[in-house]
Amino acid sequence: MKKPSESITNYIYGKNTVFETISQNPKRINKIFFSQGINFDNKLKKIKEIAQENSILIQFTNLNKFNKYFESGEKKLTTVNFQGVVASVSPVEYADFETFLNKKSDKYRKIVILDGVEDPHNFGAIIRTLAAASYDAVVIPKHRSSPISAVVEKTSCGAINHIPIIKTNSLPAIVDILKKNDWWIIAADGQSKDNYFDISYKDMNFAIILGAEGEGVSKTLLNKADFKIKIPSSFESLNVSAACAVIVYESIRQIHQI
Amino acid sequence: MKKPSESITNYIYGKNTVFETISQNPKRINKIFFSQGINFDNKLKKIKEIAQENSILIQFTNLNKFNKYFESGEKKLTTVNFQGVVASVSPVEYADFETFLNKKSDKYRKIVILDGVEDPHNFGAIIRTLAAASYDAVVIPKHRSSPISAVVEKTSCGAINHIPIIKTNSLPAIVDILKKNDWWIIAADGQSKDNYFDISYKDMNFAIILGAEGEGVSKTLLNKADFKIKIPSSFESLNVSAACAVIVYESIRQIHQI
Repeated sequence: MKKPSESITNYIYGKNTVFETISQNPKRINKIFFSQGINFDNKLKKIKEIAQENSILIQFTNLNKFNKYFESGEKKLTTVNFQGVVASVSPVEYADFETFLNKKSDKYRKIVILDGVEDPHNFGAIIRTLAAASYDAVVIPKHRSSPISAVVEKTSCGAINHIPIIKTNSLPAIVDILKKNDWWIIAADGQSKDNYFDISYKDMNFAIILGAEGEGVSKTLLNKADFKIKIPSSFESLNVSAACAVIVYESIRQIHQI
Repeated sequence: MKKPSESITNYIYGKNTVFETISQNPKRINKIFFSQGINFDNKLKKIKEIAQENSILIQFTNLNKFNKYFESGEKKLTTVNFQGVVASVSPVEYADFETFLNKKSDKYRKIVILDGVEDPHNFGAIIRTLAAASYDAVVIPKHRSSPISAVVEKTSCGAINHIPIIKTNSLPAIVDILKKNDWWIIAADGQSKDNYFDISYKDMNFAIILGAEGEGVSKTLLNKADFKIKIPSSFESLNVSAACAVIVYESIRQIHQI
């Protein structure tokens, strides 16, 4: 069972974002709008081809009329650079946790749980990193989480179509179920003694929990964690999307490197 | 010899940014503006104390009047959250390359060279990561680089006051001088065979060159590099600030871990 997300906007823009979305998930695209008189580069050509193959409507128009849809984001009107293409889309579909958990996999799986990451740039950047690192899913809470807005879709560069997003009423409940199923729980915690490179990420299913900046991971979840790790820093803690990249790629390094 | 940077704005805002700036570099602060009727938490109290110790003018006012100074940034007017404090500041001073190079150091030094990173969020995030990782400097070109705007200062969380920023007319010239002085040059290059964790960062002075998204590091600089490294990815390349965090912290891991 998949449920549609409550999306702030039904438009996405930018060559990479539209290309990733249409090539990965053409059914999400309702209509493509190209800028009038645009010169088609390779990426725009491919978008047009895939649209035609999938009988998706194409319209040539002045894209400035879409400014208003991106007004409520963080970007100022005048800085929106559509790169010649806008698409109206159906919301991203959330993945079902039970289905994900019970799916047979011949590899160990790795996911990230976001505990209160509300900034859309950070959320989008995290999604992009997880797609790059072939992570298997990201879990977010129903409340205290960034909605999947145009900013998130754009910042993720379309990666949002590559990685299952699981939304839950209760992160502690999800963590309990993972633990019962022999997943290991790793929580980022600035107070931890262990560095993120002191633990092993090999030969196990694991979930990394990252908290909001300032507050960090909630106590309830910290108490459930098998490992707590910190990133050594001589300044403030890292930005959450930078922290995610550092920890996630340490797991990739360990798994890749002999 | 230090030269003032050409700053877009002379205002900074936010508790952490103002606190880091005033505690690290009080001479940069001309005046502090607190929101009228604000409740002073610990951080705001400390800002006030340091201001008084340094005889910096303090004014209580309606901060909304500062909205206009942040209009030209990426943030929409209505989303500016001053967290109760704004400060008028002198521009960040750039560090001199020759002075940096000739400074005696009993440790090996490590720097990052940014080849065309124009996005202020990425630039600020990179500065924050480098401060966290105790890197020794960042080098940027005079052209094709983000100016040190309010967005950069805010995204860096005030880290901009912790790390020397060197601005140059010619990155290739800087790289040549570094090489003559026995520094090793490492360039990020998606086409490389080596992964970022395949090389050693220990027991040497080194510079990591990162390029703009899409374009990457320029050919001239790639040809001068001793090592070329990539971050393995099954999606697009990482965002440049995420890539910076991954590579920089791999060097920290190698140096920390026995």
